[in-house]
Amino acid sequence: MSKFFTEKYSSLTPYTPGEQPKDLKYIKLNTNESPFSPADEVCKAVEKEAKSLMLYSDPECVALRKKLAKVLGVKENNVIMTNGSDEVLNFAFMAFADKKNPLAFPDITYGFYPVFAQLNAIDYEEIPLRKDFSIDVNDYIGINKTIVIANPNAPTGLCLSLESIEKIVSSNKDNVVIIDEAYIDFGGESAVKLTEKYDNLLVTGTFSKSRSLAGGRLGFGVANEKIINDLNTIKYSTNPYNVNRLTAVAGEAVLDENDYYMNNCKIIIENREFTKCELEKLGFEVLDSSANFLFAKTDKIDGETLYKELKKKGVLVRHFDKQKIKEYNRITIGTKEQMEILIYKIKEIFKEKEL
Amino acid sequence: MSKFFTEKYSSLTPYTPGEQPKDLKYIKLNTNESPFSPADEVCKAVEKEAKSLMLYSDPECVALRKKLAKVLGVKENNVIMTNGSDEVLNFAFMAFADKKNPLAFPDITYGFYPVFAQLNAIDYEEIPLRKDFSIDVNDYIGINKTIVIANPNAPTGLCLSLESIEKIVSSNKDNVVIIDEAYIDFGGESAVKLTEKYDNLLVTGTFSKSRSLAGGRLGFGVANEKIINDLNTIKYSTNPYNVNRLTAVAGEAVLDENDYYMNNCKIIIENREFTKCELEKLGFEVLDSSANFLFAKTDKIDGETLYKELKKKGVLVRHFDKQKIKEYNRITIGTKEQMEILIYKIKEIFKEKEL
Repeated sequence: MSKFFTEKYSSLTPYTPGEQPKDLKYIKLNTNESPFSPADEVCKAVEKEAKSLMLYSDPECVALRKKLAKVLGVKENNVIMTNGSDEVLNFAFMAFADKKNPLAFPDITYGFYPVFAQLNAIDYEEIPLRKDFSIDVNDYIGINKTIVIANPNAPTGLCLSLESIEKIVSSNKDNVVIIDEAYIDFGGESAVKLTEKYDNLLVTGTFSKSRSLAGGRLGFGVANEKIINDLNTIKYSTNPYNVNRLTAVAGEAVLDENDYYMNNCKIIIENREFTKCELEKLGFEVLDSSANFLFAKTDKIDGETLYKELKKKGVLVRHFDKQKIKEYNRITIGTKEQMEILIYKIKEIFKEKEL
Repeated sequence: MSKFFTEKYSSLTPYTPGEQPKDLKYIKLNTNESPFSPADEVCKAVEKEAKSLMLYSDPECVALRKKLAKVLGVKENNVIMTNGSDEVLNFAFMAFADKKNPLAFPDITYGFYPVFAQLNAIDYEEIPLRKDFSIDVNDYIGINKTIVIANPNAPTGLCLSLESIEKIVSSNKDNVVIIDEAYIDFGGESAVKLTEKYDNLLVTGTFSKSRSLAGGRLGFGVANEKIINDLNTIKYSTNPYNVNRLTAVAGEAVLDENDYYMNNCKIIIENREFTKCELEKLGFEVLDSSANFLFAKTDKIDGETLYKELKKKGVLVRHFDKQKIKEYNRITIGTKEQMEILIYKIKEIFKEKEL
């Protein structure tokens, strides 16, 4: 740390992204990326747009917002586009939480929420999940806090029903409720349709998972127009050109090829159910995931050891040190072949260790 | 504004980007973009990379930092890559200015500085330029504030010598001095080489202007490793994957084709001198620019009227409402042909108005 670093930020504990080792080629089941390449049309759109890179991107992302609004069944003024959904989440924390409006989110959830809270000096309550890792909706009824819920939740994969989400939103009318739907396309029901009814609901989404665009950095928020305007005030005071030209046209092409991506989601769901079944045969306890990953543990081998042994064998999964979940690993769902290799490698480990 | 918007940000006045009209095809001399397309290699690199968009980008931007460090003559750990230089500027304001370390910058300069200051609730002093729009170095000697100077300055185009920069940096050793070199390749001398000598100097740069990548959003900071680490703490608490895959490979390809871009800068400088000369022939007062734009006024017609008349004729320049500079327009330097059209259109306006 330099001697110039301001007090305010000098105690920050930044987010730790999933490891991206460069030493050898791994089967990467650790950062919830899609195993499917972007549609050809995406590559073509990007290639064509590259010739115009000397010109600024459209800060309003008009063409992209129009297409996304149509796919989501909302109006374009209900949408903001951001540099990944991390950015819209940070903007939302800035805009809708402060000393008077502290945050509340589950104690086991996306690791960036406490980081954003700390960054913006906002108090937060981490509400414990039930023992089975599910969210108890009653914990969020009328609590008068700015609520953030990942639905499906990460790293558990468990999903709340739309009815439960509505209960939370309707009972906290003086605060914004943020529903982070990064994984919604793998089995959950989106709350986007509720944004018309509730002026305090912000739904965030990303093109990183179901739309094979993690490397393009494209996220979005959907809400009442006033909420979107506030987020735009933050955006235009931070980085108006946050979405670059190439990502914008890539996003448009992705939306044009929606069927391809939604079909990929179906394949991921099939592979998830296959993997869950295989893991259970091997004695794993596996949560019921509605996401593109599984959260699993076994009494035979502790979470960290399994993670390390798999890494030695060229398969990366994500292990978290947090006490409550350290027995588990989060396993991204890849292609059928990748999942078969995972199962094969686990069997090998069990055999080597005589488990 | 929604009723949920936090007090802290509800009075923000966001930055106003230069207009990007969609109604008709203009000669765009209003946002300091390059008139030159990216090198072919940039387009090829982007096309190739698009196939990997389902994978996250490298948060450390290792390959890109290595190449940029080599071009700049520093070590890779002295470099941070960001989503445009606006992002590194915002990170720097967050990291190195607060109530105890207020900001100081010229009263006429890049319009985003006061916005970032307001966003981060940092007090700032706007130090008046001299009457001739030059910066008086003495105003910045030993002032114990976090200083930000665009060099060359915008929208004036005027440049400080490296000697002057060094005086400012060396006399404010307890504060970070930020030199924003967005336009340095059009005639100024970079302060990057001073970052080895001074631990309180941060130089920021962008690929938007001289490197024809405004639409790609790629900026950077160069400083002592400790300063870079602090900026990374902010980055990893905000948006670790801030530079997307396509922009990263575009940036690498740009650096591989450095000669092409530096030659384009030479052409811009020639066109600038041509345009200055022509404007002076028409009775304009034109500041001595070291940037890819000119700042010019004439007693014949007020700044806003000229801006509006040129817009009617399909040529966009940038006019600022600010009292001290409202007689002026900032004119981006494009191709020789574009500048000839500008001059022709101004002559037409003068003729129509019998000036």
